[in-house]
Amino acid sequence: MSLLIVSFSPDFLMNNRENSRSNFDACVVIDVLRATSTIVTALSNGASEVLPVLNLEDAIEFGKMGYLIGGERGGIKPLGFALGNSPAEYCTDIVKDRKICLTTTNGTRALINARKYANDIYVASFLNLSSTVERLSVYDNIAIICAGNDGDVSYEDTQLAGFIIEKLCVIRSYALSDSALIALGLWQELGEPRFVGSHAKKLIELGFEKDVEYCSSIDVNSIVALYDGKVIRKFQG
Amino acid sequence: MSLLIVSFSPDFLMNNRENSRSNFDACVVIDVLRATSTIVTALSNGASEVLPVLNLEDAIEFGKMGYLIGGERGGIKPLGFALGNSPAEYCTDIVKDRKICLTTTNGTRALINARKYANDIYVASFLNLSSTVERLSVYDNIAIICAGNDGDVSYEDTQLAGFIIEKLCVIRSYALSDSALIALGLWQELGEPRFVGSHAKKLIELGFEKDVEYCSSIDVNSIVALYDGKVIRKFQG
Repeated sequence: MSLLIVSFSPDFLMNNRENSRSNFDACVVIDVLRATSTIVTALSNGASEVLPVLNLEDAIEFGKMGYLIGGERGGIKPLGFALGNSPAEYCTDIVKDRKICLTTTNGTRALINARKYANDIYVASFLNLSSTVERLSVYDNIAIICAGNDGDVSYEDTQLAGFIIEKLCVIRSYALSDSALIALGLWQELGEPRFVGSHAKKLIELGFEKDVEYCSSIDVNSIVALYDGKVIRKFQG
Repeated sequence: MSLLIVSFSPDFLMNNRENSRSNFDACVVIDVLRATSTIVTALSNGASEVLPVLNLEDAIEFGKMGYLIGGERGGIKPLGFALGNSPAEYCTDIVKDRKICLTTTNGTRALINARKYANDIYVASFLNLSSTVERLSVYDNIAIICAGNDGDVSYEDTQLAGFIIEKLCVIRSYALSDSALIALGLWQELGEPRFVGSHAKKLIELGFEKDVEYCSSIDVNSIVALYDGKVIRKFQG
């Protein structure tokens, strides 16, 4: 039977020998606040690709090669970067037909880590939920990887993981790991996004209240975002 | 404000730099299926102490010194051990006034790991829920450490973590980490123990269906079990 598992942080999957040995048919990476919401927004607004990198220095090098560079450290736009990590900055005027290089604290690390588990890696947010779930349903064994929060779990990421599981299980049957049962149970209790975790609070303190609200919007677009291990592009069915 | 956090596996707390630096006032360790349920049962039935050790060899050495040795590997009693890891084996006739040395796959490791975070470590199960929660409420910052399942999360441990949080928050106010919000949400969805995780299924396959049922019983006794970093004994208020 097909299997759904959730990793509550990018490294967590590695702790389990069972998981680290097996290959999944697909991964889906979640960093609701805000990296995967920002990536989906950028592609929806016409960016030609998003290249995730781990380090500021690498991003700056890609900037010299014509990439628009964006990201954050501690929630704040790094010095010399064109863009921060707010989806509001990635509007059509700015990103249309541009290549973007992105580096964030948790999200880009989760994406790059996901290459250990599957070749096909999808980028999910509440914004592109239904289109992503529809695409995921063609795969058997799926690892849902939450970017989390500096190695700790994220309340918001776990909510989206649960929502994805709920919707996938309507389309077809999956066996659920303990982690998947936990995320699903949480989502079933809430029934709608409830962004009151530590990172949501921190973003609100930093003045990003509108981002927090926007990132909880469901199905704002119908983008499927596929990371092939190098770049993230719109998947054209 | 006082803080409750949950670690979904013994190693998970270590992933977060914030947590590994700080000290908690108390830890509570959970391995519902079955180590902490077994420890609580043994103490309730008159065992004078339970000594957790990591290795089979260490347990065998303590056996030579008069300890009754118990535990499991892969759910099964190791060769030469007096007892397995089934609470049903730890009846009064067998354990009264005896010192017990226990080694299990996940639970004893979680207990020994917990020494990194606090001096006062409590051993929790559904069996001794209310008495444990009452004692925990004297502490400010508490880490709830789930033993999990071979490095992965446990559905049953997370349920008990959520139940403990729900009951603690009735007694006094705590700030909840994202992990605590997730466990609480799961428990609020379920409202009662629902033991259908991977380890529960495995135990049922191995013939331990009665253990699974017993370990989901709430407040069977009023033991408070305190691990001082060396041995676990009944805490006498």
